[in-house]
Amino acid sequence: MLVFPAALQELADQFARLPGIGGKTAQRLAFHVLELPLEDAQEFADAILEAKRSVHCCPVCQNLTDREICPVCDDDSRDKSVICVVAEPKDVIAMERSREFQGVYHVLHGVISPLNHVTQDDLKIRELLQRVSDGGVREVIMATNPDTEGEATAMYLSRLLRPMEIRVTRLAYGVPVGSQLEYADEITLSRALEGRQEI
Amino acid sequence: MLVFPAALQELADQFARLPGIGGKTAQRLAFHVLELPLEDAQEFADAILEAKRSVHCCPVCQNLTDREICPVCDDDSRDKSVICVVAEPKDVIAMERSREFQGVYHVLHGVISPLNHVTQDDLKIRELLQRVSDGGVREVIMATNPDTEGEATAMYLSRLLRPMEIRVTRLAYGVPVGSQLEYADEITLSRALEGRQEI
Repeated sequence: MLVFPAALQELADQFARLPGIGGKTAQRLAFHVLELPLEDAQEFADAILEAKRSVHCCPVCQNLTDREICPVCDDDSRDKSVICVVAEPKDVIAMERSREFQGVYHVLHGVISPLNHVTQDDLKIRELLQRVSDGGVREVIMATNPDTEGEATAMYLSRLLRPMEIRVTRLAYGVPVGSQLEYADEITLSRALEGRQEI
Repeated sequence: MLVFPAALQELADQFARLPGIGGKTAQRLAFHVLELPLEDAQEFADAILEAKRSVHCCPVCQNLTDREICPVCDDDSRDKSVICVVAEPKDVIAMERSREFQGVYHVLHGVISPLNHVTQDDLKIRELLQRVSDGGVREVIMATNPDTEGEATAMYLSRLLRPMEIRVTRLAYGVPVGSQLEYADEITLSRALEGRQEI
C-alpha cells in the first residue's frame, strides 16, 4: 500500500507525540510545515533547539528562565519572606497577571499524582523545604489548582511545612468574579459560604 | 509584567502559527518540548528540516515524494491512460486504501477558492493539461471533495478537458456504505436516487 514519503511520515510522527495532537492533526501539521518557505521551517527548527538550549530552571524558585536568576527572584522590591507555591510555570504568569502578589514563587513542576506515577520525589519539594529552612520565610501560600491532585499536594506540603514555624495558607475558595451563581457547583458555593467575609 | 523567557515565547509563537493551534495549545506544546530529553528535541528539529529537504513534488503527477518519480508513476503495472485528479496528497492515500484504482493520479494541491484567494493559476492545472495533450490518456476521473469548492474545481477542469477528446468522469454520489439512511442529508439522497443502479 502507498504511504507518505518517509521524511513526511517521520515529521507527522513527531507531531503526533505532542500532547493532544492526534494522527490526523499531526498529518495536517506536517503538510503545513512542508508548504512553509525554507527559512520559516528553519526558524521553527531553530526555535525548538534554542528553547532547549537557553531555558532552564531558576536555581532559587525553579521557574523557567533564560537568565541566571529569574526576574522575580532577582527583583529587590519583591518580598522574599512570602513564597507562593504553584504547580507549573504558567501558573506564575497567571498570578503575575493579577498584579496583586508582591512576594516570590516556588514552582513544583507538577503535582503528586499516583495515577500518572508522579510521586513527591519527582517534584521540587526538597528545594522548597531547603528554602524555608534557610530562614527568612514568614509565609508559604499554597496556590496549586483547586482539584483533587492540587489539593492533595497542598495538604502534603502543608504537613511538611507546619512544623517549621511559618504561616502556611491557601488561596481562598469561592465564586469567580463575573460568574453567575446559577452555574456555580454546590461545592464551590458551600466553600464560598464558609469563607464569607464582612462587607 | 512578567513574561515567559524569550526563547520559550518564540517557540510557542512558532507553534501558534500552525493551522488549528491556538495560543493556549501553543504554550502547552512549547512547555512539552522543553521537557523532552535533548536528543528528542533534536530529532524533532531534524525531522522538520529533513522533510523540507527530501520531500518534493513528483514531476509527473505532482504528488509528494522523496524519490525522483513517485512510486505510483514509476509502477509499470499502473494504467497510465487513466488519471484520477485529486486536490491534496492525502486524497491519494485515501484512494489507494480502497485498492480499487489501477490508474495514476494528478494532485492539484488545492481547489479553486476565491474566498481564500486561490485561483486556477495557483493549482497544478497547467501540468494536468500538458499531460493530457502529451497523449496516451483515455479518461480523467474527477475526485475532488464533494463540496462547493471541489465541485466548482471539477466543473472548471472538465470544461477545459472535454474539448481534448477524452472521457471525463466524476466519482459517484450516494449514501456511504455502512451509514444510516435516516442521517443522510436530502441532497445526498436525491443524488443517490438519480444514480441508482440495477442489482
